[in-house]
Amino acid sequence: MIAIKVSEKSIRRLSHYARCLRLARIRGEVIMTSQQLATNCGISSAAVRRDLSIYGEFGKQGSGYKVDDLLINIEEILGTTDPPPVIIVGAGSIGCALLISGLAGTGGYTYDSIYDNDPAKIGKQCGNKQVRSIDEISEVIRKHKEIIAVIAVSGGAGQDALQMLVEAGCKAVLSFTLEPLNAPEDVEVRYIEVSTELDVLTHSMRRKERADQ
Amino acid sequence: MIAIKVSEKSIRRLSHYARCLRLARIRGEVIMTSQQLATNCGISSAAVRRDLSIYGEFGKQGSGYKVDDLLINIEEILGTTDPPPVIIVGAGSIGCALLISGLAGTGGYTYDSIYDNDPAKIGKQCGNKQVRSIDEISEVIRKHKEIIAVIAVSGGAGQDALQMLVEAGCKAVLSFTLEPLNAPEDVEVRYIEVSTELDVLTHSMRRKERADQ
Repeated sequence: MIAIKVSEKSIRRLSHYARCLRLARIRGEVIMTSQQLATNCGISSAAVRRDLSIYGEFGKQGSGYKVDDLLINIEEILGTTDPPPVIIVGAGSIGCALLISGLAGTGGYTYDSIYDNDPAKIGKQCGNKQVRSIDEISEVIRKHKEIIAVIAVSGGAGQDALQMLVEAGCKAVLSFTLEPLNAPEDVEVRYIEVSTELDVLTHSMRRKERADQ
Repeated sequence: MIAIKVSEKSIRRLSHYARCLRLARIRGEVIMTSQQLATNCGISSAAVRRDLSIYGEFGKQGSGYKVDDLLINIEEILGTTDPPPVIIVGAGSIGCALLISGLAGTGGYTYDSIYDNDPAKIGKQCGNKQVRSIDEISEVIRKHKEIIAVIAVSGGAGQDALQMLVEAGCKAVLSFTLEPLNAPEDVEVRYIEVSTELDVLTHSMRRKERADQ
């Protein structure tokens, strides 16, 4: 099913459904209607029904969907059944906090290991992991057929970190850097952009204030 | 200029331009062509030229733009000149890491203060700030005409945190919670979704692998 070409917007919605279904499963819910799924996910019920009709016959409309089955199907479409390991580059405050807060509830992602190039950090504990030397990262990447690397290095060091990951064969990167990174076409880089989200919030808040005046 | 209705996609691009221009200013660059801005931001030069032509007459095409003037103009359109203070709810690993890593390079955003409801955390140092009791948050929100709150509480506590922020009059929230939050229409909630970004990366990586087979 993963061969279906799905837009990024749809992927994001499916990811949200999966997250809501996992939370429902934790609460012990067995059946969920599309309306409940919509309410839980904060997505319109029309969009939910459309998505569920496009991506397969998961249940009977009206009587609801089996939470487990729907989750399995959605994870198959997403291709996130048995997800790849995640490594963190940079054992500063953000890198360590990510490791400590972990990835519970994300459907099987786990942080495999964390790396730094600062001798003062290598060997130190960060949550339940010991910070490893950046020199070991190529070996770890080569060992795994698939891996996602999170870049959480300090400002200006992102491109060097990416370069090293690319050379070792990593194809998927999530970056917390402020600066945009240059990657080859076959490597996908996505960004966590706190500052852009703040700009969007500020813009929206101030536009509303102007409109209210 | 902020009265112009701008799409979220455009806002995000403008936010990226602003970030690139700030980095250029730090490097001591005074003039930048639209091509350089495009390369620095990882955005197509056609899109950059279109945006700059829509949002005002900022420079002469060909001879480049004055970095300072263009940045000021973009910040005016974004409404991020003199941005609002940012507070953090939740002094766990993520909340503290955000505070410690700070908001340098974001065009004037700063973390004003950090709050928790756990007596064991209240009064502790987190970077250069002391964690304050959640009971003080209403007062701080009421004192500022505009404020952005970052929710970085542990799983399941997001909705309660949001409720308290809304009651105190906060209109803009950035949430790190896994679960979607219910907010009144006049309150904008945005999310930092590491797990969704991982899903998008995994989907894309596995679809490419399939296609290569």
